[in-house]
Amino acid sequence: MRTLNAALPTHAGGPVRVEGWVHRRRTFADRTFLVLRDRSGLSQTVVTDGAARRQIAALPEETVVRVEGTATANSRAPGGVEVTAPVITALSPPAAPSPLELWRPELDASLPTLLDHGALSWRHPAQNAVWQVAAASLRGFRRTLDAAGFTEIATPKVTATATESGAGVFAVDWFGRPAFLAQSPQFSKQALVGVFERVYETGPVFRAEPHDTVRHLAQYTSLDVELGFIDDHRDVLAVLREVLAGMVGAVGELTGTSPAGLDLPVVPEEVPVVHFSEALRLVGASPDEPDLAPEHERALSRWAVQEHGSEFLAVEGYPSAKRPFYTHPQPGDPRWTNSFDLLFRGLELVTGGQRLHEHAAYVRALTERGMDPEDYRGYLDTFSHGMPPHGGFALGLERWVARLTGLDNIRRSTLFPRDLHRLTP
Amino acid sequence: MRTLNAALPTHAGGPVRVEGWVHRRRTFADRTFLVLRDRSGLSQTVVTDGAARRQIAALPEETVVRVEGTATANSRAPGGVEVTAPVITALSPPAAPSPLELWRPELDASLPTLLDHGALSWRHPAQNAVWQVAAASLRGFRRTLDAAGFTEIATPKVTATATESGAGVFAVDWFGRPAFLAQSPQFSKQALVGVFERVYETGPVFRAEPHDTVRHLAQYTSLDVELGFIDDHRDVLAVLREVLAGMVGAVGELTGTSPAGLDLPVVPEEVPVVHFSEALRLVGASPDEPDLAPEHERALSRWAVQEHGSEFLAVEGYPSAKRPFYTHPQPGDPRWTNSFDLLFRGLELVTGGQRLHEHAAYVRALTERGMDPEDYRGYLDTFSHGMPPHGGFALGLERWVARLTGLDNIRRSTLFPRDLHRLTP
Repeated sequence: MRTLNAALPTHAGGPVRVEGWVHRRRTFADRTFLVLRDRSGLSQTVVTDGAARRQIAALPEETVVRVEGTATANSRAPGGVEVTAPVITALSPPAAPSPLELWRPELDASLPTLLDHGALSWRHPAQNAVWQVAAASLRGFRRTLDAAGFTEIATPKVTATATESGAGVFAVDWFGRPAFLAQSPQFSKQALVGVFERVYETGPVFRAEPHDTVRHLAQYTSLDVELGFIDDHRDVLAVLREVLAGMVGAVGELTGTSPAGLDLPVVPEEVPVVHFSEALRLVGASPDEPDLAPEHERALSRWAVQEHGSEFLAVEGYPSAKRPFYTHPQPGDPRWTNSFDLLFRGLELVTGGQRLHEHAAYVRALTERGMDPEDYRGYLDTFSHGMPPHGGFALGLERWVARLTGLDNIRRSTLFPRDLHRLTP
Repeated sequence: MRTLNAALPTHAGGPVRVEGWVHRRRTFADRTFLVLRDRSGLSQTVVTDGAARRQIAALPEETVVRVEGTATANSRAPGGVEVTAPVITALSPPAAPSPLELWRPELDASLPTLLDHGALSWRHPAQNAVWQVAAASLRGFRRTLDAAGFTEIATPKVTATATESGAGVFAVDWFGRPAFLAQSPQFSKQALVGVFERVYETGPVFRAEPHDTVRHLAQYTSLDVELGFIDDHRDVLAVLREVLAGMVGAVGELTGTSPAGLDLPVVPEEVPVVHFSEALRLVGASPDEPDLAPEHERALSRWAVQEHGSEFLAVEGYPSAKRPFYTHPQPGDPRWTNSFDLLFRGLELVTGGQRLHEHAAYVRALTERGMDPEDYRGYLDTFSHGMPPHGGFALGLERWVARLTGLDNIRRSTLFPRDLHRLTP
């Protein structure tokens, strides 16, 4: 029966079998320390027997081994227990020299090297811990929504028409017919509000971004929510608030190594909201600006911390011209919309809002933008058959994790990123 | 404050507000019954006021409405409570005539019609209930694996090389470079066993199946599991058993409408296992047969019920020639493999097994099949750096749900299916 490294203290004094990767060997005159890594953390084995020491000398770092021995209390060992009198069995052939020194406390390789060797770099405990934040976030996201009566959905990732616009889509050869990778589950999730009222999906979305930036990927994991029977976008924001609290809560429950930069925010009972026009005024921008510049987003985040003690700030009312055609206008003033961006630590993290729900409103919105409603017929049909007022949001998992752990590039929080240049590993 | 239909009995005697779709109107001489559908089920509103009755006459089925009235006990009403003295507000424009009669107890439209109008057909309570089985299965899958120390992963869906073989892949134009939609997360999930030991993913996979069958889709949801530090494929099967029990358990927890054909199996403490060679003998096939024919699978399932009282049967040892190159051979007899198919009610539901974990074994296996190891260099590199003995399995969500609910076509358990002919809705 295998014992995980983290459970060794509960076996002190008894026989144990640990299995994992040779993380590091430290050789002294009379003994060799074998540091073993498994999914729960590190352990230390003391090897004094000559034959066993020679055996270890031939098992380089990253070789997979089984160690059977005695768990022995030693206050200087990690966790207060080390393995003594070991019998070692290699479970893999001796590992080839690693291009990364995974045993160092910090991985100091360049980003391209880390990404080229993703299958190795993620083995580093600090990297591994970053992904645990992602996995916990997914857990918290679903747990919150399951408890609130949402239904998980699975939508098509290949579509006959581009979701949002003709730009930025990947073309697929679909049995000889032209098709596209879905930029979002937007159309499907709206249609399914007509079925389940409240839906969510966690899945890949695809953006043929020709820009090589630290915050864009060509594939990322979108956490999508859509719900019906709302009054307006504020109801959507209230669900987003619950979801964020659930995600932060799940990350907070993680045991084991924390990523170096992890800094969990407090999710306020109510996320402060500022109107787009007021946001422009606050940052000293012209009232005619159609969008917030990155420096504006940073300034607004600072303002929210000072004014509201909140690292989250919702900016509502974005100008219609900058929002997709399905965005619901602000009642009484159609220059603005019932939509919002959620800023977190100086960056846009979530986009959401209320959608149009009347067929005639869609036809009008598309026509006003010079788009042909006929191109969206299948999507629009749904709105002829009774759709409740509804809205939703989408949150990029990898961007969230990068912000939460202070990473400077979204590629560092993505298992095997895909971008303009990268199709492997 | 909105009350869901299912919660009406707890409000008997008091004021209520229900919201949902006009499921059906029944007009009598002195009253109109309005059957309202929401995500929790149906409710009945009695309308006697003349103006309100005229109002309803102009709100066809599928219009979204709000009904404010009094919850009144009536033993003949569904749930023992109906809404009386209603004030009705339309929340959507009057619905256009529906191509499907959603108020009928059974949807009797043809399959193409159901699929063409997926956004409507899924509104039918019986259809909705089918998807609830899928959503619960996902929940049970993740819950089981989260509790067993697995880490959820998110892997690339676009790759530079085909995963399993050159056939059956969709080509993608990746910024002008040739690429492919992933047929499975196989390579990535194996690499991540080297990181997290135990991983799972629930996500879309893509198969350019030129066959138009009732059990194949071009996109389906694959529930993928992979784990390290196993002895052989039997350890994988043991995890699969836990996962199936968790999925059946979660489906069993569903409240509300059950799909008509839902018939939950008992998951035995241990899934019976028969070797491929013995399976051929049992069904009277030639010992040289390289695979099981559909009628063999059905006969074996019947045998498992009779012999072991189990609706699940694992057939292990499939011939190497019929398994992918990464399959681990059966120790002592390389004609066979350490792999299995899980049969459920006469059909293959899961494929799994132990994988090769030594770099040299991969090079040998590829070379023997006339494949060039150089084409798989990135993938193979991982196995030079210490990989534990490992294995895993993949289960198609939609196929599972179809079997569980007795559906004759996998398209009936898929929200918006994609196949040879179908790219919309």
